[in-house]
Amino acid sequence: MFKELFNPSSIAVIGASKDESKIGNVILKNLISEKYNGKIYPINPKISDIMGLKCYKTLKEIDEKVDLAIIVLPAEYVPETVKECVDAGVRFIIPIAGGFSESGKEGELKEKEIKEYLKRGSSRLIGPNTVGIYVPQTKVNTALTDPDKISYPKDGSLAFISQSGALGLLTMDSFADLNVGFSAFVSLGNRIDVDENELLKYFSNDDKTKAVLYYIENFKNGRAFAELAREFTKKKPLVVLKAGRTDQGVKAASLHTGALGSDDKIIEGVFKQSGVIRAYSETELVDYARVLAYQKPLTGNRLAILTTAGGVGVVTTDYVSASINGIGLKMANLKKETKEQIKNIIAPFASAENPIDITAGGGDKEYREILGILNDDDNVDGIIVYALFQTKYVTENIIDIIKDNIREKPIVVGVIGGAYARDMLRKFEMNNIPAYPSIERTVKAMKVLYTRGEYLRRRADQNGSY
Amino acid sequence: MFKELFNPSSIAVIGASKDESKIGNVILKNLISEKYNGKIYPINPKISDIMGLKCYKTLKEIDEKVDLAIIVLPAEYVPETVKECVDAGVRFIIPIAGGFSESGKEGELKEKEIKEYLKRGSSRLIGPNTVGIYVPQTKVNTALTDPDKISYPKDGSLAFISQSGALGLLTMDSFADLNVGFSAFVSLGNRIDVDENELLKYFSNDDKTKAVLYYIENFKNGRAFAELAREFTKKKPLVVLKAGRTDQGVKAASLHTGALGSDDKIIEGVFKQSGVIRAYSETELVDYARVLAYQKPLTGNRLAILTTAGGVGVVTTDYVSASINGIGLKMANLKKETKEQIKNIIAPFASAENPIDITAGGGDKEYREILGILNDDDNVDGIIVYALFQTKYVTENIIDIIKDNIREKPIVVGVIGGAYARDMLRKFEMNNIPAYPSIERTVKAMKVLYTRGEYLRRRADQNGSY
Repeated sequence: MFKELFNPSSIAVIGASKDESKIGNVILKNLISEKYNGKIYPINPKISDIMGLKCYKTLKEIDEKVDLAIIVLPAEYVPETVKECVDAGVRFIIPIAGGFSESGKEGELKEKEIKEYLKRGSSRLIGPNTVGIYVPQTKVNTALTDPDKISYPKDGSLAFISQSGALGLLTMDSFADLNVGFSAFVSLGNRIDVDENELLKYFSNDDKTKAVLYYIENFKNGRAFAELAREFTKKKPLVVLKAGRTDQGVKAASLHTGALGSDDKIIEGVFKQSGVIRAYSETELVDYARVLAYQKPLTGNRLAILTTAGGVGVVTTDYVSASINGIGLKMANLKKETKEQIKNIIAPFASAENPIDITAGGGDKEYREILGILNDDDNVDGIIVYALFQTKYVTENIIDIIKDNIREKPIVVGVIGGAYARDMLRKFEMNNIPAYPSIERTVKAMKVLYTRGEYLRRRADQNGSY
Repeated sequence: MFKELFNPSSIAVIGASKDESKIGNVILKNLISEKYNGKIYPINPKISDIMGLKCYKTLKEIDEKVDLAIIVLPAEYVPETVKECVDAGVRFIIPIAGGFSESGKEGELKEKEIKEYLKRGSSRLIGPNTVGIYVPQTKVNTALTDPDKISYPKDGSLAFISQSGALGLLTMDSFADLNVGFSAFVSLGNRIDVDENELLKYFSNDDKTKAVLYYIENFKNGRAFAELAREFTKKKPLVVLKAGRTDQGVKAASLHTGALGSDDKIIEGVFKQSGVIRAYSETELVDYARVLAYQKPLTGNRLAILTTAGGVGVVTTDYVSASINGIGLKMANLKKETKEQIKNIIAPFASAENPIDITAGGGDKEYREILGILNDDDNVDGIIVYALFQTKYVTENIIDIIKDNIREKPIVVGVIGGAYARDMLRKFEMNNIPAYPSIERTVKAMKVLYTRGEYLRRRADQNGSY
């Protein structure tokens, strides 16, 4: 049902402006310069044309039905404009401006008025007080951010629903740098109409979307969310950054979006019950979503580590086995045959024990053979591989080598370094191989594959009783 | 006493080679291309000149006293070559090759032999089995890594001592990307002579060095370290990533460097007693060292947060106040006057409560005023500032604004985003303002300023009894 929102055949920009300092200018420019290829209808009664497009006085002047109307007028004009949109049969309306319930009584009244107008027709509304949506595939972008200072991510398989527009954009900017792709981004705003639950239902059936991530300060309908999430997580992973988990955080959230806190222990229980993976930061949010989108869950807790740098192997081992500052899983006990086969491949002073350290003299060739061997060892459930390009024999070919070796066992990759390493991280991402720029992030990504696997097994076991 | 090691007036490369696949070629090329400006003496009996330099048959042929000899020959030739170096009065010797005690009995014997030779003179030795040293200021670089695939950091104030050469180089590569500078890097190798304790003593009196960081799997002399660290941390911060903190990690470390584990609880106690800041990952190691090097410690636990993105403020508040997935400090209770002053500056719908959220409509101007106000509020001990450049009014000028406002209270900066944000992170770093690319890293940096402040206060209190 949100198809026309994410892939509209026509967009009206109500409040289009020639003044470059105005949002009505930036949004129009973004649509044109990013090559949105549906019809664009700028609306402003005072001008006749803008950026080479005919400008309309009102919605009524437009012959076609408009799929999406972006309202960039100040709050005071929004209710009336929503009414016009509803009357004109616009399918989706996004009012960008703030100044509604988040700012006091007067704003609340405006929201009430808007809700009344919405009842008169079938139009749906995102927001108000939102940065709107960003859809890489269709180039629909209602965010008002200067493209010189932000990178928008490419098309991909993660759907991102955020109660904070800014946090969403910042996070996507960070991960665009690693080439992470998104199927859609929705800033919920004050969600007087469309909410996270409806969107979750939609993404459940959207084939492009392999995982959903939320930034949320409070659930609009927690009970409904819990049920929906339980259905959703059977099919796809859901990662949630629930802010306001401390008393101070709850207070901050109430200042930000007016969110009323729920007891974090209850939230925690709901997440566990319904298979939601919890993130605590913007970094974990996307790190977790992409590993879950790209890799199978772990079927057990025994991990092998493969590295060319001994120290990295030792620190990773600590993170794998520690419960505090670590993920509390197990280092796999490699089979005797496995160790013998590996010994035959690596240098005499290298280590065939787990963590397997082939040292800086080894590289692509050894990785290919050892990954094959580890795939055959029943004592290994998942593999953490470091692709450390600073040495001679680890080359770009290692990306294909790892890709070829992702079979039943999940593989998570660590790539540590500067500009060159980032370039390689981007290439791993293009191949849907989850790769991370630090030891901690690499190991934590593996952990959520375990958490999800365990949840799915628990559900399968209890299948009869559910 | 290590002055000639880090700033040698002459370097001999014993085993210089014309073959580009050889280490003796790479190291010589690194010295020349990075413009080390002392004398370079390539030594190889089989060639007469290399890369435009005269090549010597033996050390004896050289008239001058050599400050530093890098031995790039295989292990079997190393003892004899060390003997020649000692006899020639070379001040520092770095044998790069592995194949010593880390690889078995035979290697142990070689080390014994080397130790005997060292007794005959005053030469000192780093390693063997080491990547040696890297000194940005003097361009001395004995690491054998291809410069196309690694970035070496610039000159700066952090001294890095590592028991793992590779982990050290990878970590510096990561942080070179953020423009973090180092005064020196030393890879300890098998440390049959020079160890971390001696180096710590040296850096204690090195004015350039503002903080020291260690990657270590076992202490050569733990008791001496504890005493030295206690002296050192009175003057300067010391951050240690002690790997092998779990049973599995200890096993991995013994495979890597032959390290014998000590009970991690004892280590933890020693660190607390002697004021060592503990890091758990390569990222924390440098993140902590630089905040400690650039900022004063916190004098209390009450933090203010300043942001243009409400969601970032909420998540940060959670991290500040939570003990699990957080740092367990306090959100400052801003004074009434403070809140009133801030209210007069920001938009009516923005928040003058802590976290202070000036919203995307605010920027440089508001930051300058509010930072001044927060500096005057006695209820605030430290300030977390987000410089989120995606919006219009936050510009590069904010770097100077923050710089001007670092007075008695420490400030830590968060800059979240992609390529543009990284560029700004680099500029913050150039101004010695600790800035971090994620919420979690920003908050955790503030925590170590608290830990160090608390330690120094505790010591000052107990001063009489110590």
